[in-house]
Amino acid sequence: MEEKIPYKTYLSENEIPKQWYNVRADMKNKPAPLLNPGTLKPMTLEELTPVFCEELCRQELDNDTPFFDIPQEIQDFYKMYRPAPLVRAYFLEKALGTPAKIYYKFEGNNTSGSHKLNSAIAQAYYAKKQGLKGVTTETGAGQWGTALSMACSYFGLDCQVYMVKCSYEQKPFRREVMRTYGAKVTPSPSNTTAVGRKILEEFPGTTGSLGCAISEAVEAAVTQPGYRYVLGSVLNQVLLHQTVIGLEAKAALDKIGVEPDIIIGCAGGGSNLGGLISPFVGQKLRGEADYQIIAVEPASCPSFTRGKYAYDFCDTGMICPLAKMYTLGSHFMPSPSHAGGLRYHGMSSILSQLYHDGYIEARAVEQTSVFAAAEMFARVEGTLPAPESSHAIRAAIDEALKCKETGEEKTILFGLTGTGYFDLKAYESFNDGTMTDIIPTDEQIADSLSRLPKVE
Amino acid sequence: MEEKIPYKTYLSENEIPKQWYNVRADMKNKPAPLLNPGTLKPMTLEELTPVFCEELCRQELDNDTPFFDIPQEIQDFYKMYRPAPLVRAYFLEKALGTPAKIYYKFEGNNTSGSHKLNSAIAQAYYAKKQGLKGVTTETGAGQWGTALSMACSYFGLDCQVYMVKCSYEQKPFRREVMRTYGAKVTPSPSNTTAVGRKILEEFPGTTGSLGCAISEAVEAAVTQPGYRYVLGSVLNQVLLHQTVIGLEAKAALDKIGVEPDIIIGCAGGGSNLGGLISPFVGQKLRGEADYQIIAVEPASCPSFTRGKYAYDFCDTGMICPLAKMYTLGSHFMPSPSHAGGLRYHGMSSILSQLYHDGYIEARAVEQTSVFAAAEMFARVEGTLPAPESSHAIRAAIDEALKCKETGEEKTILFGLTGTGYFDLKAYESFNDGTMTDIIPTDEQIADSLSRLPKVE
Repeated sequence: MEEKIPYKTYLSENEIPKQWYNVRADMKNKPAPLLNPGTLKPMTLEELTPVFCEELCRQELDNDTPFFDIPQEIQDFYKMYRPAPLVRAYFLEKALGTPAKIYYKFEGNNTSGSHKLNSAIAQAYYAKKQGLKGVTTETGAGQWGTALSMACSYFGLDCQVYMVKCSYEQKPFRREVMRTYGAKVTPSPSNTTAVGRKILEEFPGTTGSLGCAISEAVEAAVTQPGYRYVLGSVLNQVLLHQTVIGLEAKAALDKIGVEPDIIIGCAGGGSNLGGLISPFVGQKLRGEADYQIIAVEPASCPSFTRGKYAYDFCDTGMICPLAKMYTLGSHFMPSPSHAGGLRYHGMSSILSQLYHDGYIEARAVEQTSVFAAAEMFARVEGTLPAPESSHAIRAAIDEALKCKETGEEKTILFGLTGTGYFDLKAYESFNDGTMTDIIPTDEQIADSLSRLPKVE
Repeated sequence: MEEKIPYKTYLSENEIPKQWYNVRADMKNKPAPLLNPGTLKPMTLEELTPVFCEELCRQELDNDTPFFDIPQEIQDFYKMYRPAPLVRAYFLEKALGTPAKIYYKFEGNNTSGSHKLNSAIAQAYYAKKQGLKGVTTETGAGQWGTALSMACSYFGLDCQVYMVKCSYEQKPFRREVMRTYGAKVTPSPSNTTAVGRKILEEFPGTTGSLGCAISEAVEAAVTQPGYRYVLGSVLNQVLLHQTVIGLEAKAALDKIGVEPDIIIGCAGGGSNLGGLISPFVGQKLRGEADYQIIAVEPASCPSFTRGKYAYDFCDTGMICPLAKMYTLGSHFMPSPSHAGGLRYHGMSSILSQLYHDGYIEARAVEQTSVFAAAEMFARVEGTLPAPESSHAIRAAIDEALKCKETGEEKTILFGLTGTGYFDLKAYESFNDGTMTDIIPTDEQIADSLSRLPKVE
């Protein structure tokens, strides 16, 4: 094996980024603003602050400032689990017999098991700084909820998590991790909120969705004094915090003198993908470099590849602001047999605009092929990957196999967002051979899209 | 916070140890030899090789060679998840308000979730080199079985794991990880072996024990051509491989110019403790340095603190060689309500001799206090620790609190052997307040010890 480049490249602690990068500052076409669902006018700071922490609202609305200082308290916390390694996938390359050089940025070496902690600690910090008592949120697979529990525990904040019911049932251990960090976890939809009760009435027996859990968490935030709502993906502020992934990856690549040709990330709401690619897209936007950037989404929930670029509700209860994004409609629910995560119906406005403008491409992959890639990766690279991350692995393997055919020595970078230690139910169905691929029909998607809000 | 010393110290890849250190070479009183249970004579190489891989038998019997080269293939694999970080527990120190300086060597950043991989890959390598078809083993909490599955998958070996029944039932997800790596997992006692059937007959409804699972795995190894038995702890060879922990820890401490006063490790069979302390004990044995070394064991399974130093069977079925060790008797079974791991009835012969000669001390801790320490550690240091590792955390916190009283600025090093992501059932009972401390009575221990084999 080629030994010049180490298996793992770690930055030193003082090389961890001290600023987040705001890719919006370099976008000619800015992402469309959030709209007030009543007036259909862009949301103002005053309209956002009853729901979100004030400083986070400023970050949300700022399309111009290129860099934001990372507060010292957050830098300290980052040192607990960062820098995250950049790994040269020598073992995978060898197993594939590819001339491609594969790297991955691994964000799973922390108890939340994923990159979500990068934004959770930032959001908890600003909530604490504002003097709040606690925060509410939703979680799907549980990674975000775990990350937020850890962050809130660190700052002594109350943490209330609405967990999508099918995940709550499939992943009882996730609940216990959150409880160990002091969080209160409620399966969603629940009868603790008006919107939850309404959804239960309309769809009894529903297994829940992220959109629905968001509605409940928002309601819980605005009805309790001293609480705000926080969100683990989709929003501009989240992508901003997650740029620590891309900035670290780029610094590590620079350190070993490597330039990627292809950059691959899985895409649900877009937090990991946006964070990973931002510095690279920034170069593209400024005309300094070119990269092939691939967003990988599940064929069961294909917002980029089969959704519509339009204003939509971020939540099922339709109480949140409208966002312009590639969406399957806020009523879209992926099949309960879909075990691969990335279940959100829409996609970050920033990424949607970048996709619309041709800076990134997208592809959808089916879950059995995703788990086959996951299993192969686990066996040769040693880490059992999260199903979400395995979408990126699938695409990275596919690209490396193309190189094997053509003989090209491309350099591939992908984001390994987390570990699959709490996703063993899904692995079990793959191991048992009972996993299926359920892809929504055109009619299903058309029906869901027919309910999009009417916005000029 | 004191910033001179980083939160995490990583060696570079070329600083990973290239040799294991054999502490026996420096022991004046060598550990007592394994005895043939029939003849009560020391086991010879010829008697051991039908059960164990040949090269591993040589390592087992070698009390003189101070260093063993780590084969290149194992060094390559080590790079997959090593070097493991040495962490300065700044957050824990702050939360305790102690003048003590606390460091831990973290071995959990791999999918097996623990240090067990260090020996698993070595044992799988020697099995492959010998041309074997596969290996059999037992696993308790599942860490060893997972580690061995990963190692066997890497070398294309068949892997058969007998898993202690109560763990098998409490930890279904552990089984799925092993299956994902291609292993076959059987709950023990089972009716797939003669010894399993005998134990089931004698103790119907037993929840199993490590000693019993060992018997089954040994029987499975010797009755299948091309198979050998491998063990994750207790044996000299295992402690040898695990010295990579202590050697790395020592190299990292040297790098930052730190000398520990107290070294703490949890002790079940002794693999982690032996691996961590070997280089330090070596200095003590050679009169080059002095350290306070503390073995921490569960009050539910107190082999050092309440056991007898005597020859005993390593397994319940009494088919393995006899080992001289601190033991509770091979029929001792810790209460099923004991959730903290470290359930083995005996202790490594090397560590037993060192303890007997006063080079290390031991203490037993109750599991509710262990989980309280685990919860505190998780909340301030971010990592959810394995229950096993949390025994060491408990003692480290206790020592740091003593320093707070006395004002002493002692430097404490402990081994954080792994993560608790598959131990959430145990955390659940702690979170629910239903966890209890069950300590064996003197009569129970006396009864079990009365069945020790008669050896002069």
